[in-house]
Order: sequence, then structure tokens, then C-alpha cells
Amino acid sequence: MTLREIIAKKRDGGRLTDGEIGFFIQGYTKSEITDYQASALLMAICIRGMDANETRALTQAMRNSGKVLDLSAIPGAKIDKHSTGGVGDKTSLLLAPIVAACGITVPMMAGRALAHTGGTVDKLQSIPGFDASPDPRRIVSLLAQNGAILMGQTRDLAPADRRLYALRDATETVISIPLITASILSKKLAEDIDGLVLDVKTGSGAVMPTPNLSMQLARSIASTCRKLKTKIVVLLTDMDQPLGCAVGNALEVRECVDFLNGTSPTDLQALTLALASHMILMAGKARTIRAAERMAFETVESGAARQRFLDIVKAQGGDIRSIENPDLLPKARNITALKATRTGIVNRADARLIGDACNALGAGRVKMDDTIDPAVGVVLRKKVGDRVTRGEPLCDIHWNDEQRLRSAMPLLKEAFKIGDRAVRRRPLILDVLR
Amino acid sequence: MTLREIIAKKRDGGRLTDGEIGFFIQGYTKSEITDYQASALLMAICIRGMDANETRALTQAMRNSGKVLDLSAIPGAKIDKHSTGGVGDKTSLLLAPIVAACGITVPMMAGRALAHTGGTVDKLQSIPGFDASPDPRRIVSLLAQNGAILMGQTRDLAPADRRLYALRDATETVISIPLITASILSKKLAEDIDGLVLDVKTGSGAVMPTPNLSMQLARSIASTCRKLKTKIVVLLTDMDQPLGCAVGNALEVRECVDFLNGTSPTDLQALTLALASHMILMAGKARTIRAAERMAFETVESGAARQRFLDIVKAQGGDIRSIENPDLLPKARNITALKATRTGIVNRADARLIGDACNALGAGRVKMDDTIDPAVGVVLRKKVGDRVTRGEPLCDIHWNDEQRLRSAMPLLKEAFKIGDRAVRRRPLILDVLR
Repeated sequence: MTLREIIAKKRDGGRLTDGEIGFFIQGYTKSEITDYQASALLMAICIRGMDANETRALTQAMRNSGKVLDLSAIPGAKIDKHSTGGVGDKTSLLLAPIVAACGITVPMMAGRALAHTGGTVDKLQSIPGFDASPDPRRIVSLLAQNGAILMGQTRDLAPADRRLYALRDATETVISIPLITASILSKKLAEDIDGLVLDVKTGSGAVMPTPNLSMQLARSIASTCRKLKTKIVVLLTDMDQPLGCAVGNALEVRECVDFLNGTSPTDLQALTLALASHMILMAGKARTIRAAERMAFETVESGAARQRFLDIVKAQGGDIRSIENPDLLPKARNITALKATRTGIVNRADARLIGDACNALGAGRVKMDDTIDPAVGVVLRKKVGDRVTRGEPLCDIHWNDEQRLRSAMPLLKEAFKIGDRAVRRRPLILDVLR
Repeated sequence: MTLREIIAKKRDGGRLTDGEIGFFIQGYTKSEITDYQASALLMAICIRGMDANETRALTQAMRNSGKVLDLSAIPGAKIDKHSTGGVGDKTSLLLAPIVAACGITVPMMAGRALAHTGGTVDKLQSIPGFDASPDPRRIVSLLAQNGAILMGQTRDLAPADRRLYALRDATETVISIPLITASILSKKLAEDIDGLVLDVKTGSGAVMPTPNLSMQLARSIASTCRKLKTKIVVLLTDMDQPLGCAVGNALEVRECVDFLNGTSPTDLQALTLALASHMILMAGKARTIRAAERMAFETVESGAARQRFLDIVKAQGGDIRSIENPDLLPKARNITALKATRTGIVNRADARLIGDACNALGAGRVKMDDTIDPAVGVVLRKKVGDRVTRGEPLCDIHWNDEQRLRSAMPLLKEAFKIGDRAVRRRPLILDVLR
């Protein structure tokens, strides 16, 4: 077997066997296969597609490319959540303490930032001292200690995905349902979880541009996960406007602290509790979705989730004073309001444009080696459907660099649209695939 | 403009503009574009295709990637011939002296060996001392001196093709009609020729596997060449069995010397004179194809072509004693006959298998850095349609290494098929596109 034969087969629309897919992933992980051969195969996969069996084989091969955690020493169910990426989506930071406080183990390995979407690891790293890359042995002890961990992708778990992802990003082979499916699931299944709650975003700020493609991706992930004997529930959720109000790393951590202290934007609360309740139900800790949601809500009301968050942050080296007093989190030197130019109702607060604006301010990376400014970002003062009077602030812009502000401003101005009448909003949770 | 945008456009089946194609070729030639990005785009082109305009733009961009010869100082027509590659095809070595002896300038830049097909440069290099890589200034003076040159692809002309070809070979993106079209024509048009006679092979030993694909390639090259204001005639010719009898570098040179001395297998003579006559007609040196063919034939009969071949070889540093006395050419230490296992009529002498067998003997390269044994190869004693008696030799195998002989033998045995009746042979020249 040679990679050239495999490339030619997929180029002509053939189906790859488990052996052929394994040969590719093992060879690429060991650097025996060159980047230029791999990218030719990725493009052929991107255009010709992969059937359910090939997608399952690719997922398995990528999961097996590195260490697979063994959590059998920890009793009870291990459940994780994953999101395909959005703007202002800080639910991972909330779900880990909430669900762990319900007695469920949550090995939360967060994905990386993608284009305009934020990265959970970048958010966590705005907490001084926070270590988002514990080694595999420490992962198990942290999970045993606090029931949850918040970490980035490690070198040890699914290393094939790290390398392939960087290559896909450079060669325009990201937008491929089988490749996205295998990328997400290979990492999650390397965590030795019993079940996964998946949040597939749709809308302007989502990776998948149309609801139809988002649904195809949701179905592909759900069926592949089941083939690999892992429970899954998929929520299809709106990403036309940012989730919650804060967009930007320290600003989002602050919104999470407020949430755990009992104050939250409606949409952030609704989605967090919905995701938490599916995790709780999957773990068998509640009989109905309503009971599960009540259980999740009570961890917030009682302060148990807040305490758990402090425990997790402390165990991972983070300075908990910045959680107890969020004024100690990184703060931008300037805050400028973007004011409404007319009176009316907010018809649009475009997630992609706001995400791009925050990147322009320095909250994200445009190139791989850009450094992130943890303090900058945007806090929405109005969301879609809100009334606004001319001159009232639509959002506050937290900035440090005047040139960056100038490049962000036109994006923010374009992001907001004010109309005379309210537009029909689609629901936050569009569908649930069980 | 970024290469990523160009890749995404072709991935989705879009048409690339002249500017986008130029950006890719210039960037790749200057090594500003990585191999892995280029191979992703090549695969997208391979699957999605290119229309006539894109193919023309790609050809132009590749031609302009390096030096373009200026032959305006040399009077008269400059005509070249190109073949898509076959087994035993030594017509380039014959056409250069024959057509030059008719007063036409022939800047013959030969392609490289491809898989089972031989390379003209490898054949020439079995003549001791022969220099197949003169620099561009010397090309012009050699052409002025002898009316012809026999050379390999240089670093100066169409350098984009050299780099792209190596990448295509490693990534299974060779079989693409627009990419083959641009590869062939970019080099030929960098020679500053007035016209091109193209020999597109079809059959088991051809690069294009089916007559339909061979015809598509012929049409693509013809229309692209015309768009770029260069005359072209395409001959579609048979490559189910080797052309002539000799396959292998020095063996083929010897067959050429015999040809110029007046002895030739019928098919080699027929095709050589046909190609020569189209070159002569295109140059305006004859009024009809019959007159052109007679003119070509007379250069052989009169010894003018032989003398011109000696002049060319001498001017390029080759030892002409090995042409005057071919026994001085490299010779294999052993000759073994493959004998017929039954009496009957030869139904098959498969070009691809015989080409593969010669490669196995050491006549070609399997990897880029393999060294070639100039002496080894096969000389057919019977061709398709010939009667053979059990025990008579089908071919002579010229070999130096017993292990290599053992790997070539089963290929040769499979190559020949003897039947009770003659099979219907297709004509040597299947079609002519003017």
C-alpha cells in the first residue's frame, strides 16, 4: 500500500478502507507522509466526501494516533460538552463547575479559536496563572479531585488532529463534514467519556454557513459517535448574534463570574442550563430534562457551582482573587461606547462582524503566532429585539490601541442594524437530536 | 488576493481568472507558495477541471515563468514535434536530423521519462559525451549551426513546469487534461516556435489510458496552442505495442543509426515519415503531404539525414565514432531470448508490460534518483501479426544483473500472447487533427 494509491482512489471518488485510512493517519502522525501529499488527499476528501464508514474509520484512526485517557479509576459517568464554535460562547467555563457540582465527571478539553470565534483556552488564560495544559497523569488526578478540568488540546491526545488541522487551515480544506466530524470526535473520544453533548451552531457567526450544512454536520457527528459506542445528544443553536453580552477573553470570564454570582443575560442562562441538563440526564443523575435543569439551576443558586469554579481554577494554578474580585482581571485602558444613530428596534447584532471586530481589537489571532490582548473586546448593551433611543450606547468597546480601534469601528457599525419594527427572531435552540 | 481564496474558489468549482492563475504560478516559481498549498490547488484542478480560457492562462503563466527563447535571428520556420510518451518511441532522434536536412529549424526539447515510457534524454546520453543541457545562448548558436538541437528540459525555460511536475507526480495529480496541456505547451512555446506537430499516443503504453481521453487531450492541446497563435497538427497514434523493435537506451540509438543507414522496422519508418511530412508541410517547404513525405524520405536515402545526425551529435559533444560504429555504444554482457511456447500468430506485444520490464532491467527510473543502465533493454523479434513457431525467439533480452532479469521475465512472458488467428490491428495513425 502506498499513499499515492490512496490519493488516486479518493481523487476518483472511491471509498477508502479502514486499512488505507489508518495507513494515512499513522504515516502522517509519524511524519513519514509529507504535508504536500497529505494536503492533496485532504482536498480530494473535501471534494469527493467520505461515507459514514470512512468517517468512522478516520475518527478511530485519529483518536488512536496518541494517548487515550483511562478514567476507569474514577467512579460514575464522564460526560463532556463540545461546541462547533461561536462568538461570546463561554458555556464551557460554566458547564464544568455546574455539572461537576451535580456529581458528574467533566473532562472538558476545549477546542481552539477559529477565525472570528473565541477560544476557551484564551479566555481561561486571562485568569493570572491558569494552567490549561496539564499532563495526562495530572488530568486524572485533577478530575478525581474536583470532578472537572478545563484544558486545551494536549500534544498527547489525538496528535494527528493538531497537525492535520493546521494543514487544513492553510489549504482551505476545513469545510468538510467528514473531516470536521473526525477532528471533533477524535479528541473527545480520546478523553474516555461515556457521553457527549454537542452544541452545533448555525447562523452568521457559525463555522457552517447554512442551517442545512449545520444539520448535516450534526447528523454526521451523531451517527459516527454512536457507531463508536458513545452516547450523544446534539443541540442545534442560534449563532446569528453573540451569546450573552461579553465578547473578549477577560470580559467573558467576568460574565461567567457574574453568572455564578446569580446575574446573567437571558440567552446565556437558557443555553447553559439546557446543555447542563442534557449532560445531567445523560449521566443518569435525573429522570427528566426538567428535573435535570432544576438540579443545574440549584448549583448556581446555592453557590455550589461558584465554589466548584474556584476549586477548579485554584487546582489549575489560577489566581482565585481575580474570580473573587473580577476587577483584578486584565482591564483595557479605554472604554468607548458605540452609540445608536437612530431610534428604533435592534434588528441585527451580527455575530461574525462582532467577532471580527474583537479580533481586530486584539482579542483573537489572525495569524498562528499573534499574541492576544486578554483585556480587549466588546460588551453588548443592546441585543436583537431591544428598543434603543438615538444616542444610547449599543455596545461598549474595551480597547488599548487606537489604530486597532479604528479598524474595529467600521465592523461594529456594520454589525448593528436598527429598524422600525421588531424582526422575527428564530429560537435560541432550534433543534435537539437525540 | 491570497492563494487560500484561489484554492477555495477552485475547490467549489469556480473559474480562475488570468490574474489568479498568474499569482499562483509566479508565487510557486519564486517559492513564496508552499508545496502543500500548491498540491491542494492541483488536486482541486484535477477534480474540478479547467475550461479553455483557464487552460490558456495557465499555459501562458507557465511559459512566462522563465526565459523565452528568441530565435528571430535565425531565418525560416521553427517547427518542433512532441509526443505524449510511448515505449520504443525514438522518433525525436530521427526527426531532428531529417527535418533539419530539409532546411527547417528544429529546437527539439525532449520531455522526461514517465513511468514505463522512455526518455529521449536518457537515450541520447547513451552516446558517450553527449551534452543534453546546453545553456540558452548556446541553444541559439547550435540551432544556427545545424538547424537542430536535441536537448532535455532546461532550468531556464518554463521552470514552473519542472517544479509542478515533480509535485504532481508525488500527489497523483498528473492525469488532468488542463494540467498536461499546460505542461507540454508551456515548454514548447518557450522555444519560440512557429508550429508544433504533436503525437498523442493511445493504447496500453500511453499515458492516457483510453482513446477517448487521448482525443480529449489532443483537442485541448490543439485549441490552447491556436489560442496562443501557434500552428499545430495533432496525430493520434497507436501505442498498444512498442514502436519499432528496440526498447532501451543504447538499443534505441542503434535502431536510429540503422534507420539513417536505410534499415528500419515498418511502423517506425511510417510514423517518422508521417511526423516529418507534417513538420515540412507546416514550414511551407512542400505543397502536399505526399511531396513532404518524399522530401523526408530522400534525406534518408541520400545520407543527408545521417550526416546531419553526426553533425548534431558532434556539436553537442557526443562521440561520433559510436554512431559510425554502433558496436561502440554501451552493450549488455548477456543476451537471452524469450522463446515462444506455442506456434501461432502474435496477438499481443503489450507496450506497457514491455516498458515495465525494461525499467525492471534498469533501463528507466522507478525513483527520481535511480541511475540508468544505458545498455539493457529488449529487442522484439516478432511484432503483432507475425507468425511464430514454438521455440522461436519472441524477443532478445539484453541484461546485466541476474536479479533484475528475474523480475523482468514474468512481465515479458505476460506481454506476449500467441493465438491461432490474427487479431484485427488498429491502424498506426488513428486520426489527424489539423
